[in-house]
Amino acid sequence: MKKHNFSAGPCILPEEVLQKASDAVLNFNNDNLSLIEISHRSASFVSVMEKAKNLVLELLDLEDKGYKVLFLQGGASTQFLMTAYNLLNSKAAYLNTGTWADKAIKEAKLFGELVEVGSSKDKNYNYIPKGYEIPKDVDYFHCTSNNTIFGTQMKSFPEFDGVTVCDMSSDIFSRQLDFSKFDLIYAGAQKNMGPAGTTLVVIKEDILGKVDRVIPSMLNYQSHISKDSMFNTPSVFAVYVSMLTLQWLKDLGGIPFIEKVNEKKAALLYNEIDRNPLFEGIVAKEDRSNMNATFTLTNESLKETFDIMCTKAGINGINGHRSVGGYRASMYNALPLYSVQVLVDTMQELEKNN
Amino acid sequence: MKKHNFSAGPCILPEEVLQKASDAVLNFNNDNLSLIEISHRSASFVSVMEKAKNLVLELLDLEDKGYKVLFLQGGASTQFLMTAYNLLNSKAAYLNTGTWADKAIKEAKLFGELVEVGSSKDKNYNYIPKGYEIPKDVDYFHCTSNNTIFGTQMKSFPEFDGVTVCDMSSDIFSRQLDFSKFDLIYAGAQKNMGPAGTTLVVIKEDILGKVDRVIPSMLNYQSHISKDSMFNTPSVFAVYVSMLTLQWLKDLGGIPFIEKVNEKKAALLYNEIDRNPLFEGIVAKEDRSNMNATFTLTNESLKETFDIMCTKAGINGINGHRSVGGYRASMYNALPLYSVQVLVDTMQELEKNN
Repeated sequence: MKKHNFSAGPCILPEEVLQKASDAVLNFNNDNLSLIEISHRSASFVSVMEKAKNLVLELLDLEDKGYKVLFLQGGASTQFLMTAYNLLNSKAAYLNTGTWADKAIKEAKLFGELVEVGSSKDKNYNYIPKGYEIPKDVDYFHCTSNNTIFGTQMKSFPEFDGVTVCDMSSDIFSRQLDFSKFDLIYAGAQKNMGPAGTTLVVIKEDILGKVDRVIPSMLNYQSHISKDSMFNTPSVFAVYVSMLTLQWLKDLGGIPFIEKVNEKKAALLYNEIDRNPLFEGIVAKEDRSNMNATFTLTNESLKETFDIMCTKAGINGINGHRSVGGYRASMYNALPLYSVQVLVDTMQELEKNN
Repeated sequence: MKKHNFSAGPCILPEEVLQKASDAVLNFNNDNLSLIEISHRSASFVSVMEKAKNLVLELLDLEDKGYKVLFLQGGASTQFLMTAYNLLNSKAAYLNTGTWADKAIKEAKLFGELVEVGSSKDKNYNYIPKGYEIPKDVDYFHCTSNNTIFGTQMKSFPEFDGVTVCDMSSDIFSRQLDFSKFDLIYAGAQKNMGPAGTTLVVIKEDILGKVDRVIPSMLNYQSHISKDSMFNTPSVFAVYVSMLTLQWLKDLGGIPFIEKVNEKKAALLYNEIDRNPLFEGIVAKEDRSNMNATFTLTNESLKETFDIMCTKAGINGINGHRSVGGYRASMYNALPLYSVQVLVDTMQELEKNN
């Protein structure tokens, strides 16, 4: 039996994507060679890379708007560093909404003055700061759209005329946004886009070339742009599986379609969390993430019972992050509504039995 | 029919590894979850990472000698930068034996004074410089053990008491060396170790912590060592397939066994290149690589004929690199002797017909 996979990332991917990926490892494009043993400069792989990039622009509605798409290595953690290396001349503004934002701030501090315009660190990041001001003279503003660990999500973004950078690792391709309001979007693949091993960067080219420092080649967005993400050997398998996942999303109806599904899944689970006296949510209601729902038992002594029931129901990956505790159900694009129903049923069964 | 895959990298991997990798994408460890949709912190994956690291130390005979093994992202190109960031205080010595060495030099120059102790750039890198002196006061000496593009290989390494760094991307695990003479070895996976997407770093811990600069976390070897290569999400699939490939090599008899096979394959091909009047080798005989054999036709007008014959014989990936021309047959660990025989037969057939 296939499990109900609520893992926070790496996470569930569509069944048909897994099947195609598995086939390609044996025989890619019926060419009697494995995907992972061909040259990344072969026509077959170059067309995968092209297709993946075009799908990103199409799904985000960013075609012909001056954006370049890169598939890099090193995860969002490398982007914490690269954004500052490439964009920070003197001062940047950061919104601190969680562990990852905090790490981004730590790395950027090596390159210039940082203004933390808002922070929810005081309450273990259980809300999204609001009403903050972004100084006009900063090189850029950086935020994190969804906080995987804590289960909060920015429902709106500040009006800001300057360069805006967003870490969308855990909710890109999950909801409709005006993506053209961002100048640089980055995302580790391993949530809604594909397996671990590649990182998406969508960048407006005209924001580059404005810092004084010399940037090492591998950290320079311009090196990668000039070589179409082939400055060095890309993470072939991860890019291919990302392309398949993006194609799957497009075939379903793109972001407008999946957003509705994601809203349904989130509503189903949050309604149960609020209704069921045995559970309570961890974060401010208005900031609840549609991707990662964090909650606890109101009676901790039921933990063992509930955990056993979940295992029996085939529910996987709902342990909370160690810095929050409780439970975290991640409901990325590929998670079926049915899996959420199974979790809700299990919560209701716990209530009935206790 | 499976092709004879002479690709320079990404390159041929063992059939049984491809089969296991394909299976794991559907169902890993019979756990009803795909390898690529489980947490990298799950017991299943943590044990893959541990096993891969132990296999590296065992195969290189570096157990209990103060080395740490890392699986990072970003390819050898990121190592060009990281080695300098972590080790270069004032001055370093580099041996320039090819395009990759040259790129390593370019990156390191951002961090200190570089002494190019030897270079074969004057003859398009068709030999390995010898008789050079390494200044005693350098922070480290850097070399490239095998030059994929040009087809040269260092058959011996200079006697040097200081820190020695070696890019072994294209011949690690292919021949017996006293690996304990090196303080830092790095290698992109996509030749003898696995698919593109992960980079092996084997590092003697005591060489770290000696530079004055602040090193960004993702570029700091100590960050990765302290978190056992889990400082951020690793390239799960690439690490898993590397582990399978290392296990395959161990089961065969390790490096002593594969070295003999590699010598046989290289001898078979180079003997034909030297014997057959229609072909000639490109590089100095004493520096010929056992991994990548570069050669040309003595009569360029036969190119089309030979290319068609190769395609008919199922030979894949022998076009030379654009900066060298001619042909390049890469004979990595997983390439069967039989594939080299097919290439040699095709060369002989060309001779017979012309």
